[in-house]
Amino acid sequence: MAVLAAQPLSVLVAPDSFKGSASAEEVCAAVAAGVRGVCPDARVTTVPMADGGEGSLDALMAAWHVRPTEVTTVDALGRPCTARLGLAPGGRTAVVELAEASGLPRVSDRPPAPLDAHTVGAGELARAALDAGAEEVLVLVGGSASTDGGTGILHALGVRFRDAAGEAVRPGGRHLARIATVDVTGLHPRARAVRWRIAVDVDNPLTGPRGAAAVFGPQKGADRDDVAALERGLQSYARVLATAAGCEPTSLTTLPGGGAAGGVPVGLHALLGAELAPGSRLVADAVGLAEAMTGADLVITGEGACDDQSLHGKVVDLVATTARGLPRPPAVVVLAGAVRVGQDELAGHGVAAALSIAPGPATLAELTGRTAELLAERAGAVTGLYLAGRAAAQRTVEPAAVPPGD
Amino acid sequence: MAVLAAQPLSVLVAPDSFKGSASAEEVCAAVAAGVRGVCPDARVTTVPMADGGEGSLDALMAAWHVRPTEVTTVDALGRPCTARLGLAPGGRTAVVELAEASGLPRVSDRPPAPLDAHTVGAGELARAALDAGAEEVLVLVGGSASTDGGTGILHALGVRFRDAAGEAVRPGGRHLARIATVDVTGLHPRARAVRWRIAVDVDNPLTGPRGAAAVFGPQKGADRDDVAALERGLQSYARVLATAAGCEPTSLTTLPGGGAAGGVPVGLHALLGAELAPGSRLVADAVGLAEAMTGADLVITGEGACDDQSLHGKVVDLVATTARGLPRPPAVVVLAGAVRVGQDELAGHGVAAALSIAPGPATLAELTGRTAELLAERAGAVTGLYLAGRAAAQRTVEPAAVPPGD
Repeated sequence: MAVLAAQPLSVLVAPDSFKGSASAEEVCAAVAAGVRGVCPDARVTTVPMADGGEGSLDALMAAWHVRPTEVTTVDALGRPCTARLGLAPGGRTAVVELAEASGLPRVSDRPPAPLDAHTVGAGELARAALDAGAEEVLVLVGGSASTDGGTGILHALGVRFRDAAGEAVRPGGRHLARIATVDVTGLHPRARAVRWRIAVDVDNPLTGPRGAAAVFGPQKGADRDDVAALERGLQSYARVLATAAGCEPTSLTTLPGGGAAGGVPVGLHALLGAELAPGSRLVADAVGLAEAMTGADLVITGEGACDDQSLHGKVVDLVATTARGLPRPPAVVVLAGAVRVGQDELAGHGVAAALSIAPGPATLAELTGRTAELLAERAGAVTGLYLAGRAAAQRTVEPAAVPPGD
Repeated sequence: MAVLAAQPLSVLVAPDSFKGSASAEEVCAAVAAGVRGVCPDARVTTVPMADGGEGSLDALMAAWHVRPTEVTTVDALGRPCTARLGLAPGGRTAVVELAEASGLPRVSDRPPAPLDAHTVGAGELARAALDAGAEEVLVLVGGSASTDGGTGILHALGVRFRDAAGEAVRPGGRHLARIATVDVTGLHPRARAVRWRIAVDVDNPLTGPRGAAAVFGPQKGADRDDVAALERGLQSYARVLATAAGCEPTSLTTLPGGGAAGGVPVGLHALLGAELAPGSRLVADAVGLAEAMTGADLVITGEGACDDQSLHGKVVDLVATTARGLPRPPAVVVLAGAVRVGQDELAGHGVAAALSIAPGPATLAELTGRTAELLAERAGAVTGLYLAGRAAAQRTVEPAAVPPGD
């Protein structure tokens, strides 16, 4: 029996945050500690992940080992504020998290203003990114306060919207229906030279019963009349954008995900050629997930709750899909606060195992209060079990099973 | 790179019961199903285990694939009852669970009788085992109602206890102090030819502040005066036994575990040469755990709660110890309702991982209500992870690493 020298274990830790209890970076640290506790000579790489939603900017900054740039801008009501812009090392890629400047939490001290809120602040972050020389701008939507079709961002980048009389129209949902023409002559010189990628995690279209106004308007404080006004505005705006972009209005109104963040994706898609993609995919590309995974034996991902959604477009799905695409796929394990997917379904997605961090009967509060400690324990168990399988295989390899001279 | 044909996975499932939610046999079935769900061609062997306490007879019967023999006997108060006797296939080994006939639950309909309760019923089970030709009798203690020093069992096997006047003394704690001599002339002809093994999971001695009367008497309804009377009786009884056995009284009064089940181990040890051993060890020997484990890649054990005790004399400890003793130790994994031992300590005992069946935040009632389903899920995860490690190792074996012609 041939006993082979064990190669060092190579582990990639690439989790989402555990919302409400640990950031992706904190999860990375806890899991890495658990792995090293069982296997001190393991090569552990950590890549905090995110799905494009809340916490994604933090995850990207952590993965890039950079600090965000502070930008003076305005909130969704136009009041001055400071917001964070993410710039990858080297500055090639910038990350604009919409909610940083234009999010609902920023304006929660005031009554909802669903018709007036806008995305000018996010646009100023984007402009700062262009000024800094970024060649790719990732726009993370989610948590927006407005339904302005992206007019705020576009305005900040130099686009001018005018009514039939040629008068300037201010950004904001209330004014969308008055827009008759789009003037891009003042557009930031680099605005069309960079690659825009928008993280979209819903497939709602711009208009109609599943559209930005009908579905997301009420969350932003829109009453029935407001929703109707916003819907009319978005329909009119789409026709104007289509004319400007030389496309069919329906290609804009039905664009899957175009209804996210009050229509921001449609405006940026029509005028700047922005691509829409799942947030987890954008983050994965931005942090170089596939490269980080190459050569790994074991990938430990995770999130607060592993459910059906996890296997469809979320971080866990993306990690599993990326692993399957490698020439030598690593084993993928999910650690979660709660696991609500069966082993069969996990296996079908290439996930070897999904385990809760729960050590036994426990309330949610007990788990969230001990997330790091429990993650480390469970990561240790995963590592122990994986190594046990590896050791057994290495031990049982008979020389005769290897073709001589091969 | 040499890709080796994977050998079928060989899994031994050897759990304790999950007290209050699943018998060891039910745990076996659930875990086996989970393993096969992930690895349909796995060779899965199930060996229900027990620690000598409640449920041990059931576990042994399940492991032996036999049904218990019904024996007409008496309860701890002498009332007729039917109790189960376990006989291994071939009849060489018999199992007498003390509580089957002489346990507290049998007499819970009556006021406690700590001075009068006795073990005659268990003795009749043992006599039936001798009559059936057993060569080894395992006595599982625990849950006894009496403090009779084993006089009941010995009486049923033909021993006669007499007072100073030569009058017969009845079994029972109340009468121990009156015993002056032991007459073994009527002992069952096979009683000293068989091997007696008593499952003992406490180390309390027969007498003294940690003895049978002081510690366990109150649980059986003894008040302060009763405890004092029982203590005097046991001390006197030990002197008589020592004379009969030709040993020092202190060797009987200080025997670790001699105070279990009201002193039964001391009586059987002194007069029949019974050996005392941890219950899990007796069960393991009886079911052939080491033999069943030979050749296994992965051993899945488990119990309701995996805590410090689990690693000291309980089923999990025994399974891990047995695995470590094999020439080719399998990986040992623990599944439990609750895990309260750290990965470090587990690793120190040769346990690769211990995982709770909890899928997330859950109450004890939620876990006990879904134990089988959750066990199957977790067993699937364990199998998936183990196989992932094994597959990786088999994939990464380079022919050059194997000495040519070795």
